[in-house]
Amino acid sequence: MGLVVQKYGGSSVADAEGIKRVAKRIVEAKKNGNQVVVVVSAMGDTTDELIDLAEQVSPMPAGREFDMLLTAGERISMALLAMAIKNLGHEAQSFTGSQAGVITDSVHNKARIIDVTPGRIRTALDEGNIAIVAGFQGVSQDKKDITTLGRGGSDTTAVALAAALDAEVCEIYTDVDGVFTADPRVVKKAKKIDWISFEDMLELAASGSKVLLHRCVEYARRYNIPIHVRSSFSGLQGTWVSSEPIGDKQVEQAIISGVAHDTSEAKITVVGVPDKPGEAAAIFRTIADAAINLDMVVQNVSAASTGLTDISFTLPKTEGRKAIDALERNRSGIGFDSLRYDDQIGKISLVGAGMKTNPGVTASFFEALSNAGVNIELISTSEIRISVVTRADDVAEAVRAVHTAFGLDSDTDEAVVYGGTGR
Amino acid sequence: MGLVVQKYGGSSVADAEGIKRVAKRIVEAKKNGNQVVVVVSAMGDTTDELIDLAEQVSPMPAGREFDMLLTAGERISMALLAMAIKNLGHEAQSFTGSQAGVITDSVHNKARIIDVTPGRIRTALDEGNIAIVAGFQGVSQDKKDITTLGRGGSDTTAVALAAALDAEVCEIYTDVDGVFTADPRVVKKAKKIDWISFEDMLELAASGSKVLLHRCVEYARRYNIPIHVRSSFSGLQGTWVSSEPIGDKQVEQAIISGVAHDTSEAKITVVGVPDKPGEAAAIFRTIADAAINLDMVVQNVSAASTGLTDISFTLPKTEGRKAIDALERNRSGIGFDSLRYDDQIGKISLVGAGMKTNPGVTASFFEALSNAGVNIELISTSEIRISVVTRADDVAEAVRAVHTAFGLDSDTDEAVVYGGTGR
Repeated sequence: MGLVVQKYGGSSVADAEGIKRVAKRIVEAKKNGNQVVVVVSAMGDTTDELIDLAEQVSPMPAGREFDMLLTAGERISMALLAMAIKNLGHEAQSFTGSQAGVITDSVHNKARIIDVTPGRIRTALDEGNIAIVAGFQGVSQDKKDITTLGRGGSDTTAVALAAALDAEVCEIYTDVDGVFTADPRVVKKAKKIDWISFEDMLELAASGSKVLLHRCVEYARRYNIPIHVRSSFSGLQGTWVSSEPIGDKQVEQAIISGVAHDTSEAKITVVGVPDKPGEAAAIFRTIADAAINLDMVVQNVSAASTGLTDISFTLPKTEGRKAIDALERNRSGIGFDSLRYDDQIGKISLVGAGMKTNPGVTASFFEALSNAGVNIELISTSEIRISVVTRADDVAEAVRAVHTAFGLDSDTDEAVVYGGTGR
Repeated sequence: MGLVVQKYGGSSVADAEGIKRVAKRIVEAKKNGNQVVVVVSAMGDTTDELIDLAEQVSPMPAGREFDMLLTAGERISMALLAMAIKNLGHEAQSFTGSQAGVITDSVHNKARIIDVTPGRIRTALDEGNIAIVAGFQGVSQDKKDITTLGRGGSDTTAVALAAALDAEVCEIYTDVDGVFTADPRVVKKAKKIDWISFEDMLELAASGSKVLLHRCVEYARRYNIPIHVRSSFSGLQGTWVSSEPIGDKQVEQAIISGVAHDTSEAKITVVGVPDKPGEAAAIFRTIADAAINLDMVVQNVSAASTGLTDISFTLPKTEGRKAIDALERNRSGIGFDSLRYDDQIGKISLVGAGMKTNPGVTASFFEALSNAGVNIELISTSEIRISVVTRADDVAEAVRAVHTAFGLDSDTDEAVVYGGTGR
């Protein structure tokens, strides 16, 4: 008998009907002879409504209380889901993150899981129950306070429980049929990927693909837990994410896994920096001290006549204000002429392990962009990824051009988006 | 420095404005030099909405999951209240029933508190925090499952915490100004009671007064915790409930504390019961085995010619169907001709410790009812209470007549009901 962890996002349990539909699917898994652990997010818009309430009583809600508030959402959905399963004649018990043994650090609103001690889950399973666990939440090791895991936290809960329980697979149910070769909202002919390696999935997630978050894939890779991303609305097989193709699935590693894009970043250019050792370090130390994560960094060639250079980097738009303020405050320490802020940029990334052994990939990529008339502003690469920054307006066209150039287009428009997005 | 426990019902925290208003009041108590523990119910209609959701997914929600669901309501209100207090510049921490050490038995949906171990609350207070505690909920001693305490559970949470923390007073904030000599919705000239003994309050609660529930007053009496029932909407002094008048409040014990009424009961008459030993016992054993609580019981005088008698008793309307079914199933064992069910009855009760030493009270009570043309169907008495059953239609008139006859009428219409009712 196998042990399966299933995770359902908020759009899958948006209302009573959704909960009943998901309950049937869970019972099917149980009837197929599996022990089943289910991780569930808050229903539909619940979390947004709670955030709205918090903002009404306090402009800056405190972390500890904010976490206590938000975790009410999963408490509701998990209890209702357990009831719906019982109503189908099967035994189910719901558990909060704390009861399920999800132990975290004390960083409220974006805690990290540091241990999982699923004793109560194991007991519930051994007694024949389906175990329902609140996603997105845990309890802090030192203070025993309720914490939340931040964006995509429920996926991480599911993978962490799968690892702790030595599950055969972690099924992530969502409102699309799996991971696609590009965002189906941009590329109508995007194809569902049947299997993708952890490494390629990590690069896609880091490059703007939103189906799985980087942190969840990283966790799955570390413990070698196969993830099956699939739709809770259709009965279709989705995308397997694992170190090697699973079982009898003899899937050949594609040269290119997909094209990701990201329009959530901005670019800051520090103009007129003295071209001498330590200057770049001073800039990036300033940014790091403000707890801001950079993405791409480019230093222009110095103009010999002035001895000055420009340094550009990209970062999340949401951190833009903070970065500018930090640099301005440290202007004299760093020494620069001016700052330029540009949030009308987009990033296109081509991901695929085949890149390592196919030298023509980079050339084809730039040809495709050039033929589409897309101007490139920054470039960064890893062993299995090429990313470029362009004007935001060019992103959709660039993604489609690259997708076609690498033969990724499907013969049909197969991608369906069923609902909203969960967390 | 004193320790005060305050409890706010759902109508006091119905929306963000209510939460901010209550936060200000709590901060006042803190500024007055008290350590403050606050017990809070779910916001307004939250609980009803959750019950509605549960009914949509399952016609018979399981106890354990139902409790998990309902407790989300207090989790929301307590976190918001803590945020609102912090926004006023004071430190506050919220705690679930489990975190606050409210230990119960395992009877889901109506658990009883068996111990309170408020170590975390004590620590929070010692660190200068205001402690916010979820009402209505606890954790079961044996299984560590989340439980709820049933109707009026938040009041009981407050009194239990006040006892465990040795508080000076337990303030119950509600949407009326206190306990009145009669229900202000029925008797416009009802007067607010300044002080009432635990004993009289227990009789009023048992007789249909809904401001405080019997169980909460019983708990307060056992641990001798003074209760101050007052409005969260006005700044007025409310009603003190204690063993003796508090401090400099030299309040004389009233002969009559008040008139209570109750239209939530039904009457069952078992007709044609053989008038021999053991018959009544067989009936009441049947009712007891069905876990139904009786209120009043009357056995009619036996008709000598037939050797048969009738036995009548009252019980909550909600239990009527169950009682009839149980009696019918055991008809041959008991031996009776027929059953009569009557849910058009009402009960009027006069309560007051002065009754013991004022022999005229009973006579005046019946005179008042007689003058008002109210017919009496059943009578029951205790040392400090007389109750009668009448037609439901006569109840309002009977209450007003008795209230006037005992000189309880106020000179003005002072009673105000501010909102809905909490739990």
